[in-house]
Amino acid sequence: MDIGPYSNYRLTVRLELRNRPGTFAQVAARLAEEGANLGAVDIVSATADRIVRDITFDVSSEAHGEHVLKRLDDIPDVRVLSASDRIFLLHLGGKIKVQSKLPLSTRNILSMVYTPGVGRVSQAIARDRSKVYAFTTKQNSVAIVTDGSAVLGLGNLGPEAALPVMEGKAMLFRELAGIDAWPICLNTQDPDEIVRTVTHLAPGFGAINLEDIGAPRCFDIERRLKEMLDIPVMHDDQHGTAVVILAALTNALKLVNKRLDKARVVVIGLGAAGTACCRMLLAAGVSHLKGIEPEGIVLQGDGDQLRACRHDLRAAIDRGRPAGTLQDALKGADVLIGLSVGNVLTPDDLMLMDKDRIVFAMANPDPEIAPLAGTAKSRIFATGRSDHPNQINNALAFPGMFRGALDAQAREINESMKLAAAQALAEIIPATALSDDYIIPSLFDKQVVPKIAQAVAAAARETGVARRRDRGGEGPLAD
Amino acid sequence: MDIGPYSNYRLTVRLELRNRPGTFAQVAARLAEEGANLGAVDIVSATADRIVRDITFDVSSEAHGEHVLKRLDDIPDVRVLSASDRIFLLHLGGKIKVQSKLPLSTRNILSMVYTPGVGRVSQAIARDRSKVYAFTTKQNSVAIVTDGSAVLGLGNLGPEAALPVMEGKAMLFRELAGIDAWPICLNTQDPDEIVRTVTHLAPGFGAINLEDIGAPRCFDIERRLKEMLDIPVMHDDQHGTAVVILAALTNALKLVNKRLDKARVVVIGLGAAGTACCRMLLAAGVSHLKGIEPEGIVLQGDGDQLRACRHDLRAAIDRGRPAGTLQDALKGADVLIGLSVGNVLTPDDLMLMDKDRIVFAMANPDPEIAPLAGTAKSRIFATGRSDHPNQINNALAFPGMFRGALDAQAREINESMKLAAAQALAEIIPATALSDDYIIPSLFDKQVVPKIAQAVAAAARETGVARRRDRGGEGPLAD
Repeated sequence: MDIGPYSNYRLTVRLELRNRPGTFAQVAARLAEEGANLGAVDIVSATADRIVRDITFDVSSEAHGEHVLKRLDDIPDVRVLSASDRIFLLHLGGKIKVQSKLPLSTRNILSMVYTPGVGRVSQAIARDRSKVYAFTTKQNSVAIVTDGSAVLGLGNLGPEAALPVMEGKAMLFRELAGIDAWPICLNTQDPDEIVRTVTHLAPGFGAINLEDIGAPRCFDIERRLKEMLDIPVMHDDQHGTAVVILAALTNALKLVNKRLDKARVVVIGLGAAGTACCRMLLAAGVSHLKGIEPEGIVLQGDGDQLRACRHDLRAAIDRGRPAGTLQDALKGADVLIGLSVGNVLTPDDLMLMDKDRIVFAMANPDPEIAPLAGTAKSRIFATGRSDHPNQINNALAFPGMFRGALDAQAREINESMKLAAAQALAEIIPATALSDDYIIPSLFDKQVVPKIAQAVAAAARETGVARRRDRGGEGPLAD
Repeated sequence: MDIGPYSNYRLTVRLELRNRPGTFAQVAARLAEEGANLGAVDIVSATADRIVRDITFDVSSEAHGEHVLKRLDDIPDVRVLSASDRIFLLHLGGKIKVQSKLPLSTRNILSMVYTPGVGRVSQAIARDRSKVYAFTTKQNSVAIVTDGSAVLGLGNLGPEAALPVMEGKAMLFRELAGIDAWPICLNTQDPDEIVRTVTHLAPGFGAINLEDIGAPRCFDIERRLKEMLDIPVMHDDQHGTAVVILAALTNALKLVNKRLDKARVVVIGLGAAGTACCRMLLAAGVSHLKGIEPEGIVLQGDGDQLRACRHDLRAAIDRGRPAGTLQDALKGADVLIGLSVGNVLTPDDLMLMDKDRIVFAMANPDPEIAPLAGTAKSRIFATGRSDHPNQINNALAFPGMFRGALDAQAREINESMKLAAAQALAEIIPATALSDDYIIPSLFDKQVVPKIAQAVAAAARETGVARRRDRGGEGPLAD
């Protein structure tokens, strides 16, 4: 699928043009011919003869960009002086930094925040370890831990290549939820070593966000860390995604007047996100669930098998004897959730479903079915992409979920907290505002993080995992 | 030794006073009686009858502070409403935070710094791992790693209690050298586990600062990490301190017209800092060195034994058969460097030394000899304390050293780089400005970090450990 010019490939190019009317028009015409999308245009300098301009445009791939540059340079009155790539420019030097909360302007301040004064704070924490929450960044910090084995949808790129993604995630933590998150990119992909390393570095952090760790290792790593640590551990690729899907589905079902416990749901792709999504749906009350892998129907979550699925979802997956094809599963289904790879569905596949069909095609960057076809053949259609309505983005969930968990000084993020997050996220859109094209709030909706955080913190208190009963101020004195 | 009122114990107290002339004078008099040092005084509110004031004063211990509060409350016209401790107030919520370098204000920016755009940066790094320096925080980041086993001079307090100290260090990295440092506080004190953990998390950091790890484990941990990692690893308690001592000694010897290679130097205390200091002095040319532990003279670094000491200092330490007492060592010595514990020296001990004696009494918070006696009995006297002249503070060295190592994208911090740092630090004070009370620059001298950084980066290039030849800009394009 050709995705067309996209901000993903945005070039800023410095051109020298002959200074006479019509030269720039040639540039604009050439860009249009070549399918590039012109953005900003600036003048850098000009003489009677020559004019230097910076222009910005989007192309559809790196190769396309190079081709367009060559074609611009071919114009007789135009010379390409330099070209730079917006995305790489934005990444120069990294995207996050560590700030001091106090200026270190005098020896007096220094002697209080560093040796000798800080020694008294250390001693107070040594006497009562729970004070670490009051007097350090632990109360607000998250380690974003990856082994680089499943970076976005791009595969096993290793820890260095994962770092820009983790920095992007740290930005979201800061900008959306005021959380201090720092990337920890591990050069081991051995589950035992990952568990050991995270256990060792946990004392300094308020929570652990596991990220882009491949399945099935991610399940075991998360389970063991949750057992061993007394701070929240969440693999966002699993649970963040599942929470947003449940929220979007809750709203979509309202629009079509169907009930979650009656809906026939098909999930394609039982990787990290797919299995977490199935688990979450079952916890929320879904009673008719089928899970699809390339082999066919490998998970039957209804009737006699429902209880087994609820008990141990992964044990209930039977790849050896598929119970039918994808098409068998789709017959009469109400909801289709794709968490697999691009372009595995045809319009005819969707036509097998019940009327008022709800289709979430979440594969990145290409959905399971092209958005145009998907929209045409379903009542409600959603993807993970920002250039179509109904973007199901896991960044809608994790900032508020960690905010709530940190606010409550929770020992874990449990099932109740996840369900509360999904419900809070769904409820942000009032019933009167819901529409087929608006089933989930925008990432920039200012209500998203606080509403989720409040719901998650309340659920933490209700389930007895909160260290902090309220958000009221603790006393400033150590003793 | 009573250290007297000190900013280390600074209280801010809210008092309600009868509103008539003379009441506040009673408060001031009572503070003076009790040996507390009055600082700021503010009026919070006033009526015809009552006046509420916030006053700040320093005391000499927590017990002293409580006693003073009681004595204030005893004044008939005065009531203590509340008291808070400045140091703990400053620590509330921690001292550092993570900032995003870009505001995440639009979907367009988001799509470039996070998925999908960031994927292109990840792929570029996956193709060429060295690009991680250009496009991530690795180029400017340091992990401050501790196991909490030797927190300041306070002992084995554990990882949580170490966190405020590491945050203070991160503040210094940021404020003095513009470096992004994040604390990693480990809940293991097993050297193998520490080495393994640091190796695993190294890909995301540009350098490792080991901190407050007890001797002798620190030696082995640092040596192994230096061998295994391709980024600088430095145990600051050892080498930062050694660099500052060498710089101060270089300047002190200029003042007394003695040469480093002729000077007879005695080092008391062969822990982490003491052994590193001995090593550094030998590398700089010292040829008459004695090392003292409670057993007596356990290290003889001169004559026949000099070569052995230079080769393997720790192997040359012989605790079984001390070659004499501390006093034997001091006879005729030119330089005494204490890196042990408080109050182990008498004025008579110093009198055994040669004339123009140089004494660095670095134990914290109480020096090896009280500053008054030390100053009286030596030509040049220095301590680690900020309330006396000649403060030898390791914070003078590490920010510039790491700045230089990061600027050069060095693979290690080697002996040449440390010597270059010491020389640069010494040379910041022009010969004409040197005096017995001014042998080392202030931490707030703006020349310190850039001069050390330039010298360290140059030494990295000269010794072939720099990845980057100059500080000039790399191109913004990934390919």
